[in-house]
Amino acid sequence: MGQKWKRTHHCGELRKEHAGKEVILVGWVANHRDLGGVIFISLRDRWGITQVVFDPSDHKEVAEKAGSLKLESVIGIRGKVNHRPSDMVNPNMNTGDIEIEGHELTIFNEAKTLPFLIRDESDASDELRLQYRYLDLRRPSIQKNIILRHQAAQIVRRFFDGEGFIEIETPFLMKSTPEGARDYLVPSRIHKGKFYALPQSPQTYKQILMVSGYDRYFQIVRCFRDEDLRADRQPEFTQIDVEMSFISEEDIYKVVEKLMVQLFSETIGVELHSPFPKIPYTEALARYGTDCPDLRFGMEIQDISHLVENSKFGVFRDTIASGGKVKAIHLEKSGPISRKQVDGLTEFVKTYGAKGLVVIQKEGDEVRSPVAKFLSKEEMQSILDSFHVADGDALFIVADIDAICSKSLGALRRKLAADWNHIPDNQFAPCWVVDFPLVEWDEEDKRFVAAHHPFTSPKKEDEDQIISDPDKVRARAYDLVLNGYEIAGGSIRIHQRQIQEKMFQALGIDPETAERKFGFLMEALQYGAPPHGGIAFGFDRLVMLLAGEASIREIIAFPKTTSAMSLMDGSPTKVSSRQLEELGLQLYDKKTFN
Amino acid sequence: MGQKWKRTHHCGELRKEHAGKEVILVGWVANHRDLGGVIFISLRDRWGITQVVFDPSDHKEVAEKAGSLKLESVIGIRGKVNHRPSDMVNPNMNTGDIEIEGHELTIFNEAKTLPFLIRDESDASDELRLQYRYLDLRRPSIQKNIILRHQAAQIVRRFFDGEGFIEIETPFLMKSTPEGARDYLVPSRIHKGKFYALPQSPQTYKQILMVSGYDRYFQIVRCFRDEDLRADRQPEFTQIDVEMSFISEEDIYKVVEKLMVQLFSETIGVELHSPFPKIPYTEALARYGTDCPDLRFGMEIQDISHLVENSKFGVFRDTIASGGKVKAIHLEKSGPISRKQVDGLTEFVKTYGAKGLVVIQKEGDEVRSPVAKFLSKEEMQSILDSFHVADGDALFIVADIDAICSKSLGALRRKLAADWNHIPDNQFAPCWVVDFPLVEWDEEDKRFVAAHHPFTSPKKEDEDQIISDPDKVRARAYDLVLNGYEIAGGSIRIHQRQIQEKMFQALGIDPETAERKFGFLMEALQYGAPPHGGIAFGFDRLVMLLAGEASIREIIAFPKTTSAMSLMDGSPTKVSSRQLEELGLQLYDKKTFN
Repeated sequence: MGQKWKRTHHCGELRKEHAGKEVILVGWVANHRDLGGVIFISLRDRWGITQVVFDPSDHKEVAEKAGSLKLESVIGIRGKVNHRPSDMVNPNMNTGDIEIEGHELTIFNEAKTLPFLIRDESDASDELRLQYRYLDLRRPSIQKNIILRHQAAQIVRRFFDGEGFIEIETPFLMKSTPEGARDYLVPSRIHKGKFYALPQSPQTYKQILMVSGYDRYFQIVRCFRDEDLRADRQPEFTQIDVEMSFISEEDIYKVVEKLMVQLFSETIGVELHSPFPKIPYTEALARYGTDCPDLRFGMEIQDISHLVENSKFGVFRDTIASGGKVKAIHLEKSGPISRKQVDGLTEFVKTYGAKGLVVIQKEGDEVRSPVAKFLSKEEMQSILDSFHVADGDALFIVADIDAICSKSLGALRRKLAADWNHIPDNQFAPCWVVDFPLVEWDEEDKRFVAAHHPFTSPKKEDEDQIISDPDKVRARAYDLVLNGYEIAGGSIRIHQRQIQEKMFQALGIDPETAERKFGFLMEALQYGAPPHGGIAFGFDRLVMLLAGEASIREIIAFPKTTSAMSLMDGSPTKVSSRQLEELGLQLYDKKTFN
Repeated sequence: MGQKWKRTHHCGELRKEHAGKEVILVGWVANHRDLGGVIFISLRDRWGITQVVFDPSDHKEVAEKAGSLKLESVIGIRGKVNHRPSDMVNPNMNTGDIEIEGHELTIFNEAKTLPFLIRDESDASDELRLQYRYLDLRRPSIQKNIILRHQAAQIVRRFFDGEGFIEIETPFLMKSTPEGARDYLVPSRIHKGKFYALPQSPQTYKQILMVSGYDRYFQIVRCFRDEDLRADRQPEFTQIDVEMSFISEEDIYKVVEKLMVQLFSETIGVELHSPFPKIPYTEALARYGTDCPDLRFGMEIQDISHLVENSKFGVFRDTIASGGKVKAIHLEKSGPISRKQVDGLTEFVKTYGAKGLVVIQKEGDEVRSPVAKFLSKEEMQSILDSFHVADGDALFIVADIDAICSKSLGALRRKLAADWNHIPDNQFAPCWVVDFPLVEWDEEDKRFVAAHHPFTSPKKEDEDQIISDPDKVRARAYDLVLNGYEIAGGSIRIHQRQIQEKMFQALGIDPETAERKFGFLMEALQYGAPPHGGIAFGFDRLVMLLAGEASIREIIAFPKTTSAMSLMDGSPTKVSSRQLEELGLQLYDKKTFN
């Protein structure tokens, strides 16, 4: 670029008061119309769109050149700012009061015919959009998201800096200690046959930093998990990572809530109210059927076992007799629910292990339900009363072991609220879920695994049960949940070697394995480790919620597909045999893979 | 931690005006003295050190407990702030006016006997310090560095944010396109036999972001190069990555210089003066023998060939006759240089390919040199005059092909300046080196390789020589050099496919290979690519210079050794055969490596 075409303004900048000014603008041809030889160009850059008019009666050659411009070509124009004729003023555009009378035009780069149009509501397939991500990234809605993400990152760092936290970079090439998810490995060339792992989180490093006395640490950092990607996950994701020394849970809550209030206010103008409610894990399961409750709407699960334990309906009676529960949720203003809808909802709860779904509908004085004839009038009335069921409402009942009641009704609760539009727009309902169990049973490995991670501190009062009854021990762990999404999770950590050893023992990790994997951390705990704890945010999900998007792919510049591929550059790819040789590696089955 | 031991102040906070206050402090036992039963503890945290006194006549049990504390244990104390007795006031400590009368003491974590003392001037070996990095990181000098790094990062991001740049995260799992350095590879489990690469830099992504219209991008981002580590390199390093659209070199210079002025002023109070001098590449080589000139001192290389081309000294005459040069540098106030010193310096220049070194010393009226007898009086005088050699000075002469004169005298210039203390302390002399060649000849591969990288734009006026005479083409590339270190490098990029194709052709990369490796970028250049350019800073080196350290290991929390190992956790390590199987990999020679 020479100085000649140095822009004087951005494309979102010019207003009435600039009228008469000679300007230079650069940008992309977003739109292009020929009205009887007069050429109208919508010139777009990151800041907005400005209309440029080329009139052949004034500048014949320039207008002809403009007339042949291709969409999305990159151009520069020189011209004069004019008021738009009053009938052409566009109040929906920042620059809608003016237009540029084009005098000169240069083409920096001509665009080929596009595979799809640059529009917010594109009908291009996801695959095509990811393949041409550089075009997809031009859509104004995604640009807005990427800029919002930038703003959120700046606010987060400014916040922690202001609170006395230090940003410290931790290694990406670290030790492989898979415990939970699978590591991405990186072969070492210098030490052939050995591998680094990419961090699933900087957990051990941030604890080490507390041992080193840094007291308050934070980092916005990429993490990696080689999992089978379901739904809305990415192999690499970004974490806001935080750790503090000499603190208890309340200190974490306070800092995090202050951050959340500031972040939501400064980015999207939403006022969150601190303190956030705290819900114990078992209560969250009982009331919402999940440890990620969406508090934007009610519809809490209620146990109605005591109302139907003696009923004539065998399924209810037998389930309760054999230790199960009968639980229900209430959908207000459901209107009549068709047989077909009931069938669909029944299929839905079956995917969560429920054997069936009982629906009770109230229409005027009538109560419609397949179980109506098995329940006494009093039983039915007591059920309706306990939910304050009104005309046009419905109840949904599952009878099963407690866990399945919770899971299926929890899922149904979200589905019904969404399908019936009972979730208020633009509302944000954060809460803490606390008092998690320390361990959970892993059916596949037939052993207890850490519910949070193996460095989580047990509650002091449960400490002596770690070995004898690990599943009865509560953890000093907490999750921050927003609108049904876990957006952050953390814990007070173990800072004493003997407790850490007990924890590994409870997890069935023998002392040699513990030493080989985490010896350096356990040793560090013997040289002056302060009490400490922390939290980590899923930054992608947080930004997704701020942006009001339904997928994290809309707030990541270069996301991968669910099969962990980048469609833009085609990675992962084969590499040269020389590269493999240098690493001392060969593919397991050359015939199959090479 | 219960509420009982919640600290009221940090260890660097208490002053005279707090006297009489009841306080709680927590921290590490940095020092420990027993003066006739009275125990003095230096309690340390990130913010400072406070003296705590336990007097057995007041609190017998507590004093006894304090007396048995081990160094670096983590404790909490409750007590009263007192003025120190006037003869005990320590003006070198922020808290030197006060001490705490200790009333209560708790031990959070007792430390074992340390492998080395936590002192700035530790005599522990580098290996031991890296193995116990968590202890090494407690040294006040390294804490200062880590905090300085944090501050620098915040200032850099705040600066770019303020200048309208957007921080955009780019992928770590990307396509392997080794061109220059070796990639770190990451095997894909889902696509067996295929690999991702860790980024050597986000170069292609940031160019794609310009094509996408983001206009101004920045990121502080980790990068990876699997090189044989010499000297002060790390396998992973941090880059300040910047890209701008619709700009020329001057726009980059302006933004970067503004950043540098602000960064140096706000972190270490040093005022840099913008604009920084610009030195063309060939001039840098001629005057300083390097493209990373240290401008803190003079001692420029001068060509004295024209003064000695007819001399009787055969080496000079013959070298010049066969196309070589005779060049020299001037060391002021060298004092007498011994035969042994001359031998050492001669060995030094020989490592840079020089065949020998001629020294001329002026002592009073006498000129001492082994070549004195071969040069005429006029010749000798003209040499001395051209350097204004004074009594007690020395000249160092190399006769060789130009490249070796430059290399050896450039290195000797730095060495002499350092050895003779001619480099002023706390001085920062930045400059731009510009007009780099586009390509350089690779002796090993017998082909031209990109001097900067293959996306660097040639100068417009040299464009038509790309294919015919690539080595004559100058690049639109620039390096920012500070005190002899390259701290940033960048270029205006190619934004037109046909030029990019020519560039690959000049580099001997055939069209299929170019397409396979960089097809996505070349295609992107066809859909509306703006003129753009950028720069990338080596953040580690920049912080090292700010901190006044000689090694980047002093400003990285968890550095690796020169053989790319982490001594703290022992990585890289072997991984389980299950992990390898899942990746479809086997080690090349099981016997050797497993």
